[in-house]
Amino acid sequence: MKLAAFRLTDEPDGTRHVGLVADEGPGWTLRPLPGVDDLTALLAAPAAERAAVAAGAARTEVLHPSDVVLLPPVHPVAMRDFLTFEAHVDGMERGMGNPGPPAEWYDAPVFLFMAPHAVTGPYDDVPMPPDTERLDFELEIAAVICRDARDVTPDQARDAIGGYCVMNDWSARDVQGREMKLKLGPSKGKDFATTIGPWVVTPDELDAHRDVDGFLDLAMSVVVNGEPVGADRSGHMGWSFEQLVSHASRASCVRAGEVLASGTCASGSLAESWGRAGAFVPPPLQVGDVVEMTIEGLGTLRNRVAAPNKSVAAVAPARRRPRTEVSS
Amino acid sequence: MKLAAFRLTDEPDGTRHVGLVADEGPGWTLRPLPGVDDLTALLAAPAAERAAVAAGAARTEVLHPSDVVLLPPVHPVAMRDFLTFEAHVDGMERGMGNPGPPAEWYDAPVFLFMAPHAVTGPYDDVPMPPDTERLDFELEIAAVICRDARDVTPDQARDAIGGYCVMNDWSARDVQGREMKLKLGPSKGKDFATTIGPWVVTPDELDAHRDVDGFLDLAMSVVVNGEPVGADRSGHMGWSFEQLVSHASRASCVRAGEVLASGTCASGSLAESWGRAGAFVPPPLQVGDVVEMTIEGLGTLRNRVAAPNKSVAAVAPARRRPRTEVSS
Repeated sequence: MKLAAFRLTDEPDGTRHVGLVADEGPGWTLRPLPGVDDLTALLAAPAAERAAVAAGAARTEVLHPSDVVLLPPVHPVAMRDFLTFEAHVDGMERGMGNPGPPAEWYDAPVFLFMAPHAVTGPYDDVPMPPDTERLDFELEIAAVICRDARDVTPDQARDAIGGYCVMNDWSARDVQGREMKLKLGPSKGKDFATTIGPWVVTPDELDAHRDVDGFLDLAMSVVVNGEPVGADRSGHMGWSFEQLVSHASRASCVRAGEVLASGTCASGSLAESWGRAGAFVPPPLQVGDVVEMTIEGLGTLRNRVAAPNKSVAAVAPARRRPRTEVSS
Repeated sequence: MKLAAFRLTDEPDGTRHVGLVADEGPGWTLRPLPGVDDLTALLAAPAAERAAVAAGAARTEVLHPSDVVLLPPVHPVAMRDFLTFEAHVDGMERGMGNPGPPAEWYDAPVFLFMAPHAVTGPYDDVPMPPDTERLDFELEIAAVICRDARDVTPDQARDAIGGYCVMNDWSARDVQGREMKLKLGPSKGKDFATTIGPWVVTPDELDAHRDVDGFLDLAMSVVVNGEPVGADRSGHMGWSFEQLVSHASRASCVRAGEVLASGTCASGSLAESWGRAGAFVPPPLQVGDVVEMTIEGLGTLRNRVAAPNKSVAAVAPARRRPRTEVSS
């Protein structure tokens, strides 16, 4: 099943319902699920219970795209972004003058925790963040966790994955580059917006797209202003989502309501092209640009870069200490 | 006021009460706050309301350390760890063969999002995590956010800070080092435990400890097995907590229930000594070691490194793609 969070176009911000999506193309329709307000809990419910809820939807009104504003399907309790596409790492490393992925990339799937409160809806405008002339996108596939997992094997992790969605990890590359000089984060380079959606698709709908090793193998593509700029397949991930959950849960825990993302696929960002070409081609995103990301079976995100919001002044530089204190 | 979360020693795991702490030394006492179950909301309440709640505590029983298990004062909705102590950065950079902090350190306070679900109580044992022979601690001061903040100035940020506590950001340096080769995170190097507490101290109690620029200036120290191994002052941060909140909120948001930490103070970790000395002196933490961290006015964390828990097998290496695909 495909589950979306939405409000009616004439309802105020903050209203939130859950609905069942039929069809995944531009002509999708949505039926409200009466009595359901927790999408994550429904993902964790037994199949029979979910079927009963879906049957309830059949008796509700049919909503069309013009009737509703789709919301982020979950407000994550934490977000993790992995780095699982070898070809993306390869391109980024070459951009830094390195010969390819470091040996450590192959050992285990490294990830960072992301800003969990910056999620935006699948068709929301994204205001241009401050301090950047290098706005970029990142095409990723993401899993929504529906059950707490601690020290689970990849086999056990399967039950913790409630569904999948498309993710655009918007990135200000110049801000991010400065932060990464400190070898941690990044933080402000990515905390202004992360788009997820358009809905969550349960794993049973994707069974036919598993490859011989059980990896989900879905076509992924990104289009800017109608021009195709990148495409890859989720089967090119170095690890399956079940392996990612297992790794994250080792001597730690992954909680229901978390979102775990694949990291950028090959050609799924402008920065990778910049790294390979040594030039800003295609150009960084500008106000008015429209980015569309589609993953086979999961649907399409479509977001326009909007004019910047007014924001507070940048923080002052560090209060410096006398150098003698530092070396004491 | 000082607010602690606790359960009685004979209550099951998962029980949680909030209490008012009197005294901060080893002879501290605690009075339950009837009807209070949300410590963060109480931090955000007007002073008169908090005083009324405290007056209610005067009519409750007095609990002693042996009566209770102190819990993490908050279960953070997100955790951010900054890098604000110049001397710590200097030591770590020298350990990597660099001459000192990169210029970017001085421009803005970089941070990472941390594992939010790994917080442990102020006196809890911390099991040795897997895969490490370089277990370390990090002595930090942390702020607990009590009000949502978006695009706030440092002055406006003051109202969002509900209180302060001590934090030990336990770190597996060898795991972290491998992850940082990918220039993001770290993740598994720090996701097994973060100790916060012993309670939250409201800002009014610390007014006398503000320096001329309004920075909190509190003595910080760490002792391992009774031996002093590090000490610094929070006044050596490059930015005040109000500036950190402002920076984090710029074109983004900081939520009530978040914890924002200073990053490691000078000499507040073993790794900094390893970097300066070029040798593992003092040695990495071992099972049985006891780490005590004290910050003036905030109290003391005391944790023993315990035997490792059984954990699942490490994840398999990446499924490799033919090299020709990567360069296509």
